Amino acid sequence: SQISRGTAYVVDKGNHRHFMEKEIHEQAEVVSHTLSNYIDFAEGKVRLDTGQLDFANLDRLAMSACGTAYYAGLIGKYWFERFARLPVEIDVASEFRYREMPLTGRMAAMFISQSGETADTLASLRYCRDHSLPIGAVVNVRESTIARESDAVFPTLAGPEIGVASTKAFTCQLSVLAALSMIAGRERGTLSPEDESVMVQALVEAPRLFNEVIRDIEPQIETLSRELARFKDVLYLGRGTNFPLALEGALKLKEISYIHAEGYAAGELKHGPIALIDENMPVIVIAPHDRHFEKTMSNMQEVAARGGQIILITDEKGAEAAPLETMATITLPVVHEIVAPILHALPVQLVAYHTAVFMGTDVDQPRNLAKSVTVE
Amino acid sequence: SQISRGTAYVVDKGNHRHFMEKEIHEQAEVVSHTLSNYIDFAEGKVRLDTGQLDFANLDRLAMSACGTAYYAGLIGKYWFERFARLPVEIDVASEFRYREMPLTGRMAAMFISQSGETADTLASLRYCRDHSLPIGAVVNVRESTIARESDAVFPTLAGPEIGVASTKAFTCQLSVLAALSMIAGRERGTLSPEDESVMVQALVEAPRLFNEVIRDIEPQIETLSRELARFKDVLYLGRGTNFPLALEGALKLKEISYIHAEGYAAGELKHGPIALIDENMPVIVIAPHDRHFEKTMSNMQEVAARGGQIILITDEKGAEAAPLETMATITLPVVHEIVAPILHALPVQLVAYHTAVFMGTDVDQPRNLAKSVTVE
Repeated sequence: SQISRGTAYVVDKGNHRHFMEKEIHEQAEVVSHTLSNYIDFAEGKVRLDTGQLDFANLDRLAMSACGTAYYAGLIGKYWFERFARLPVEIDVASEFRYREMPLTGRMAAMFISQSGETADTLASLRYCRDHSLPIGAVVNVRESTIARESDAVFPTLAGPEIGVASTKAFTCQLSVLAALSMIAGRERGTLSPEDESVMVQALVEAPRLFNEVIRDIEPQIETLSRELARFKDVLYLGRGTNFPLALEGALKLKEISYIHAEGYAAGELKHGPIALIDENMPVIVIAPHDRHFEKTMSNMQEVAARGGQIILITDEKGAEAAPLETMATITLPVVHEIVAPILHALPVQLVAYHTAVFMGTDVDQPRNLAKSVTVE
Repeated sequence: SQISRGTAYVVDKGNHRHFMEKEIHEQAEVVSHTLSNYIDFAEGKVRLDTGQLDFANLDRLAMSACGTAYYAGLIGKYWFERFARLPVEIDVASEFRYREMPLTGRMAAMFISQSGETADTLASLRYCRDHSLPIGAVVNVRESTIARESDAVFPTLAGPEIGVASTKAFTCQLSVLAALSMIAGRERGTLSPEDESVMVQALVEAPRLFNEVIRDIEPQIETLSRELARFKDVLYLGRGTNFPLALEGALKLKEISYIHAEGYAAGELKHGPIALIDENMPVIVIAPHDRHFEKTMSNMQEVAARGGQIILITDEKGAEAAPLETMATITLPVVHEIVAPILHALPVQLVAYHTAVFMGTDVDQPRNLAKSVTVE
């Protein structure tokens, strides 16, 4: 298990029952710490040295990672493509490394790993290195192999993450990827100074919202998790950046509660998984009031029409506009789209945590899992 | 429901209990029919008019589809990248259409749809059309909207597919994509005439193998399905082109048996889903003896070490080399990698079919599903 050395963090649970609970709760602090490393709040600008990653002159960016870090990368892909109009090719590292991806044109590669030692991610990095691509790495352990073998290291300042199920490392990875996509947008001339300033302001306010949101939604989620713990299967749905978040929600619930949760792009519902829907398979819909909202609501109505019970994770505008009764609606404040996935990670994590606690599993050391997968 | 008009096919079940059974069994015929449209067997070469798709001068190919057609496309991506060294960007159509993918460089787009009317796929096509990309379409219904709005149509000659769960359309889509990836390889100078000839020979022999394989494995799969029907959850694992096949296997089982099956890249097992493994969750491993075999076997051993029951779908070489006892091993003949996913689709389809039959579900008209998803 790889953790940061030489930090000032004291690695104990404090007043928390589990490291995972502690790590969920310290996200306001570590996300703030991470953002301040990449953003000049006074100037309203991203400020970071991208080193050999010359975003302005790239045709494509290749990304790879495993597990939760892969889902962070998938959200990053949406951001790079939207804000910087930079095509991103992303794949799980165990596939990336063996499919000998054709690396053509002006490319760079980016790898994401909490430990910086993930075996498949490292092998993917070396494949790109052998093809002379400039390499960037988003890692939590700065002295790691992945950091050492990269041209540009973008650390997450999450501090040591002890819970096997990643939480704060994920939101810190998202914070770094947000900053990187913004600087790429600036360098490529696709993000205006005005838009950058609005996004920076939104990011400044995010950490404070973390604590408010946790305080507001945790009691509701505790009650809800008592219900959820009765089920054997759960489906998570989302569109856009909420799709990777649905995948992450399902992974988190799988990892620590052993409930068979699966994430799906909401638009694929009708192409298969809707056949599974009945009163025994609750559906968690992640849908803040963004440009995908109406389409996701129509998927939600299809679920309801088939007797599926719905847990809706949304924002205040979405909660008002939602067209039907749910088993529960978890309501977050309305935020900019660059903040939404970071903030919406909270209910996703809390649902998994409280469900697992209620079921009595070993939350910090779930069966069969290791913190850092250093073998293939 | 969109089916081919003006064909000579008689649309009845013949001696079969269900259309799906009939359609699985007629794959030798329709795959042969489809291949003969694209391959000059006498010359040992692919022979097709790629129209405005100038593969030799493309930087990237964008692909999109939904459900089973998306998994066919994902296998196509591996082939295009391997045999033609052509980078392929693929996404489910409901995501593709809304994420406003940056279309830069010399690109073409390819869409796959049995009905040719899938709403999200059509919207994705129109997005690419608006950006002046040459459009190719792999469709089963030639008079469909997607065919009409494409520059080059590559029909599958599967005949009308009545079962809601796609089977023969899938293997015919794979056949067309195999031919397209080979011609792209030839035009890009990455596939030698010798390799092309070997692959053509392998494809020539495939249809005959279909009937042999069905005859050999169907009784075993019927027995096995009786066992499988007892379970509520199943995991499918694969690497390389077996990964999309694992996704397709899970989708098929979901659609018609309502068992919660999920497909995963085998290399991601340790990053989460292994926590689910116990004696109640059988794992179906798709692993012919290809270059991923050893790695997949090591994942299989991890599953076994956690008490998971394993069904191994492999070839004769793989069955000999497999390191442990399984609940069942389904053994296929050794074939070229261009044929492997097409042939391995058979056990995947038969497992879903017989499990559903044993459970007594409405195989041809599963609950909540429509044959052609013409709304979003």
